[in-house]
Amino acid sequence: MERSLESLARDVGGRVSGDGSVLISGLAGIEVANKGDITFVRNEKYTPLLKKTKASAAIVAEEIPDTEIPLLIASNPLLAMAKILAFFTQGSSVRGGSSDQAWISPSAKVSKDAAISPFVSIGDEAQIGSRVTIYSGSSIGPQAVIGDDTVIYPNVTIYRRCVLGRRVIVHAGAVIGADGFGFVKDGETNVRIPQVGIVEIEDDVEIGANCCIDRATFGKTLIKKGVKIDNLVQVAHNVQVGEHSIIVAQVGISGSTTVGKNVTLAGQVGLVDHIQIGDNVMVGAQSGITKDVPANQIVLGSPHLPHRQFLRVASVWSKLPELKKELDFLLKRVEALEKGSQKK
Amino acid sequence: MERSLESLARDVGGRVSGDGSVLISGLAGIEVANKGDITFVRNEKYTPLLKKTKASAAIVAEEIPDTEIPLLIASNPLLAMAKILAFFTQGSSVRGGSSDQAWISPSAKVSKDAAISPFVSIGDEAQIGSRVTIYSGSSIGPQAVIGDDTVIYPNVTIYRRCVLGRRVIVHAGAVIGADGFGFVKDGETNVRIPQVGIVEIEDDVEIGANCCIDRATFGKTLIKKGVKIDNLVQVAHNVQVGEHSIIVAQVGISGSTTVGKNVTLAGQVGLVDHIQIGDNVMVGAQSGITKDVPANQIVLGSPHLPHRQFLRVASVWSKLPELKKELDFLLKRVEALEKGSQKK
Amino acid sequence: MERSLESLARDVGGRVSGDGSVLISGLAGIEVANKGDITFVRNEKYTPLLKKTKASAAIVAEEIPDTEIPLLIASNPLLAMAKILAFFTQGSSVRGGSSDQAWISPSAKVSKDAAISPFVSIGDEAQIGSRVTIYSGSSIGPQAVIGDDTVIYPNVTIYRRCVLGRRVIVHAGAVIGADGFGFVKDGETNVRIPQVGIVEIEDDVEIGANCCIDRATFGKTLIKKGVKIDNLVQVAHNVQVGEHSIIVAQVGISGSTTVGKNVTLAGQVGLVDHIQIGDNVMVGAQSGITKDVPANQIVLGSPHLPHRQFLRVASVWSKLPELKKELDFLLKRVEALEKGSQKK
Repeated sequence: MERSLESLARDVGGRVSGDGSVLISGLAGIEVANKGDITFVRNEKYTPLLKKTKASAAIVAEEIPDTEIPLLIASNPLLAMAKILAFFTQGSSVRGGSSDQAWISPSAKVSKDAAISPFVSIGDEAQIGSRVTIYSGSSIGPQAVIGDDTVIYPNVTIYRRCVLGRRVIVHAGAVIGADGFGFVKDGETNVRIPQVGIVEIEDDVEIGANCCIDRATFGKTLIKKGVKIDNLVQVAHNVQVGEHSIIVAQVGISGSTTVGKNVTLAGQVGLVDHIQIGDNVMVGAQSGITKDVPANQIVLGSPHLPHRQFLRVASVWSKLPELKKELDFLLKRVEALEKGSQKK
Repeated sequence: MERSLESLARDVGGRVSGDGSVLISGLAGIEVANKGDITFVRNEKYTPLLKKTKASAAIVAEEIPDTEIPLLIASNPLLAMAKILAFFTQGSSVRGGSSDQAWISPSAKVSKDAAISPFVSIGDEAQIGSRVTIYSGSSIGPQAVIGDDTVIYPNVTIYRRCVLGRRVIVHAGAVIGADGFGFVKDGETNVRIPQVGIVEIEDDVEIGANCCIDRATFGKTLIKKGVKIDNLVQVAHNVQVGEHSIIVAQVGISGSTTVGKNVTLAGQVGLVDHIQIGDNVMVGAQSGITKDVPANQIVLGSPHLPHRQFLRVASVWSKLPELKKELDFLLKRVEALEKGSQKK
Repeated sequence: MERSLESLARDVGGRVSGDGSVLISGLAGIEVANKGDITFVRNEKYTPLLKKTKASAAIVAEEIPDTEIPLLIASNPLLAMAKILAFFTQGSSVRGGSSDQAWISPSAKVSKDAAISPFVSIGDEAQIGSRVTIYSGSSIGPQAVIGDDTVIYPNVTIYRRCVLGRRVIVHAGAVIGADGFGFVKDGETNVRIPQVGIVEIEDDVEIGANCCIDRATFGKTLIKKGVKIDNLVQVAHNVQVGEHSIIVAQVGISGSTTVGKNVTLAGQVGLVDHIQIGDNVMVGAQSGITKDVPANQIVLGSPHLPHRQFLRVASVWSKLPELKKELDFLLKRVEALEKGSQKK
């Protein structure tokens, strides 16, 4: 596949400085790029390398004088890079059609142009959309629905009746729709509360490897469109995650908690159950969130504090032994003053 | 399936107020219930909704005057709800018998009424009990033993010689019996200590999706009866967990640690190795437990403190910058007093 | 298999005290050992049990007078035990050759003496080395390379083009080479940055159950030789881990971070992105590392501190309410002194 620099610039909303007719066939880092590649300059530190690169063109944020190769100038070079890289790497490596080493229930509806790999199991009355790819070893439960153009990597498990939208990506080993963790004590014994709800994943969601998203007790656990979830994340029953939120690896979200739109939860964060996280909230890594967080806040710590307060607290915290010494010394000085004052 | 309200009440140890002959065919939330459903009122806040519900009956904690529909009065409505819901949702969706797309060693003993799905692998001399269900893609190692009525969801791995009791539920992707993490340094190199023990899971245990329970170095890692484990939990080699304990998602228990009966470990808790957690202990979320905890305690924090002490500590901690200011101001006042006292 | 005590001692670099011709056929704990077993005394506390054991020999650190059974004296008894146990437990339980219930691409190169279990999928142009064992349900992507003598347990996923060295062990459910978590905002939307790099795992690495090691954006995520990784660990894109490092369960390492040689990261530790951890660093459990750590340090806490400082801080931290009381009481005494001084 080859594209002119001019046409790539048009697609990513950028402009060309220099010869727009140069043909581009790939994208590579500035030090390893060759003829035919476009490269990118993520920040100014790397600008001097432009003089040495063998690339045929470069993506930059603004005009750079004295550059020999043509430039693609984009307001967000990283975004332009992502789009161009996607163009050159697109295309499924899996052939369409169903392997005769898959098991597909006679009552399942599988689109003819879906690619079903060996050792995939598709349950009764499941529905698999157009151009879906399901890799080897994945299990799709009865009555589950998989939307068009969704990709399911190997060894994924989708439990019965769960619903995935279009263009969803589920990485290997993820488990969607296992029973929520609900028990009630009967004397010493834990009696399980049957989990009769489902999980619904909206369009354009990406779910990391070995994630767990539990089915609802009643109703549904809901991941709204455009949400991106990293690996090993736990989403409990009846949780709701708002549009375009980002959830980093090893986060745990407890039952019935609602996360707003465009929220970022950094790595290893834990959220207790039945709380509300407002839109655009950012939660720092390893934080423990124990109550509602209003919209547009940045919070950090376990228990969490507003970001700046946490930094001030942590700064004093790391010097607690010195503070204790100051206090002890002050105590002695006050005692001395008291003795002096009694003598009079 | 239909049951009279009277007979349901008898089964759950409750009593009826109103017409006990009304027929019930399902259970649903108070706002979505229809004729034939029984609903439930979890707490008083929802009592007013009883006037509007279309349900044919409701589970409540105590008599509610002026209610049109008959009531099932139970001392623990949540428990009654769980039991009734289990009644209406019971029944396996899997047909008995072994798929001819499974691989079963000729020396394995598989009960005739077990349901073995496609792409299940059952190793040499493994034993599979009556009415066991093993879903697609799960792997049962050589000489492993699976007790009657146990359910193993897709893509589970049970390593060689591990033993599961009766009515155990193992969710998708869980790994039981991988080698414990034991190494000894030989100069720079880490030499592995072979892990020749097993994992034993007693009756009525539930294990969450993508959990890992490692085999013992010698002897066994032991999960006692009735224990419930959430998703993504790590249980290291030679750990022992006592009856009916609850382990919430993403907890990690280090090697040779013993957890008592009826313990609750909240989400993301970590326990160091070789410690003892007493019966009925409750550990708050994200706590780090570094030494023994006596029975009947509630602890919290990393490192952990008794619950009330932690709350007091956290309260002062969040105001450390103010405390530091107070101290600095006090220092100046003491210096002023000292100067005044020297002048005399 | 039987070996003389003398020959075992020679193999582990120890010496015999007593009859070196005694034949040993296994290894067992001191209280359960029988005739033919060698046992071991890990520390002095257990020395008295030597008088009662039925074992035929014992591994000890130094000569123990009045012992009836012959002794294998080794400077590191645990290391000697590990080596002897490995001798008695070696040997794969899997037959060589490829199951006809596996799916192997015609363009894949699989060594004839590799053991490929049922329901294994091996993609186009993948290369599988000599004496490799791949257990049931694992998926090897196109162009992946698996080195000689490597063992891959069930339900593992190796994505396209990833490279594993020799004698690597990958436990069940691990995912190697899923896409790194890289997105760039386009207005509200998260646009994915294609991850075109790979994962490379060097020789003698062990990877725990349900671990996730993500492929690089460009270039490679690199796990160097001899590294041992426990279960449920997250290694993000472009991370590098140095030789012989130990990573305990549930650790998370963020993108592009470099971990040195012989480092120990204890359980549930989190590392932010783009930092450098020096050689021989030890990080205590649950720590949160937010900046570079120089070589040879022991650090602890979130945010982390040098180990001893953390212990001093934690000690004051747990008594913050008392410290606050002292401060308040001191304030009153200073106020009293000030009043006294004003009166004069």
